[in-house]
Amino acid sequence: MVETTRRREIEDVASELFREHGYSGTSVRDIARALDIQGASLYAHVASKQDVLWSIVDRTASQFEAAADAALADLGDAEPMARLRALALAHVGVVVEDIGRASVFIHEWRSLSPERRARTLTRRDAYEQRFRDVIREGIVAGTFAPIDPTVAAAYLLTALNGLVAWYQPDGRLGPSSVTDAYVELSIRAVSGAAADEAS
Amino acid sequence: MVETTRRREIEDVASELFREHGYSGTSVRDIARALDIQGASLYAHVASKQDVLWSIVDRTASQFEAAADAALADLGDAEPMARLRALALAHVGVVVEDIGRASVFIHEWRSLSPERRARTLTRRDAYEQRFRDVIREGIVAGTFAPIDPTVAAAYLLTALNGLVAWYQPDGRLGPSSVTDAYVELSIRAVSGAAADEAS
Repeated sequence: MVETTRRREIEDVASELFREHGYSGTSVRDIARALDIQGASLYAHVASKQDVLWSIVDRTASQFEAAADAALADLGDAEPMARLRALALAHVGVVVEDIGRASVFIHEWRSLSPERRARTLTRRDAYEQRFRDVIREGIVAGTFAPIDPTVAAAYLLTALNGLVAWYQPDGRLGPSSVTDAYVELSIRAVSGAAADEAS
Repeated sequence: MVETTRRREIEDVASELFREHGYSGTSVRDIARALDIQGASLYAHVASKQDVLWSIVDRTASQFEAAADAALADLGDAEPMARLRALALAHVGVVVEDIGRASVFIHEWRSLSPERRARTLTRRDAYEQRFRDVIREGIVAGTFAPIDPTVAAAYLLTALNGLVAWYQPDGRLGPSSVTDAYVELSIRAVSGAAADEAS
């Protein structure tokens, strides 16, 4: 339990440093200094900087997966639009719950070792597939406008991930109004109303 | 002229390295090695790694600004939707024209020195303001659905910038079909059809 708490603390501090200076721009010594301990003491808890990054990425990936599973499980076979909305809401929920960690997951996974990077890519692809599937079903059902589901899913997820760049829980708009707006923009982006008709 | 060509070559190589390994993860020696010259020779052309980053960011910012100006100049006082479409198309045009450079501009500007970072942030803000203004006008005109223009502009630009992560000119969908889809998704995201009505 104490070990778990210490690891979590190390990951929190490392997330902030990786976010601020990048993985390459952060040393184990920087992490130790931010925790006010010796580098050698840090190695009692983690094998390497790479190990810390991997823990952060692995755990964050699991959070995204669990949130999406829960969102879809609640909905059964609801309409594609309701399911896409639930997926988008679950996604931004994980992003804003811990911006530092989400930011590392989104931007620093490239610094993983090749084998871990490959595993993470596979997981990201499977996660993104849920969005593609729902978008495809919505297009078939006529709810969403025809578009390549892979392109649309990539577009939406990048846009939603963009929250990490500027989201502040105590910002001008309040937390739920920002996340609601992001979900709304995403739903509209794939929705049926062809922009050409309205122009 | 020769000097300009050499600088451009250095920036091209540095862009690829910064993109692949990040600014912090790239040394002047890496840049020199990729150009097959000595580090000392590189310093005949550039003052520092920071100087190379600044050239790339500064020039890319100018390209985005010039493309947006040209797009709007062509349109005069056209409808907000036509102007937003032109802005989005101009933006993705600059992104896909040189993915390496755009990627550095989008992801590595944080590694600029504080003063240059502040100047870049001011320019980015002024650039983004054009999107906010057109979105606001479209909302007033009733073409776009009510939404905070600052949030919507941030959403759209992050989504469009996301092309740098996966765009391949020779990919499955072909260049213009991907960029067209990105512009279309952006226009729809802010368009009038409220998703709730359709669900």
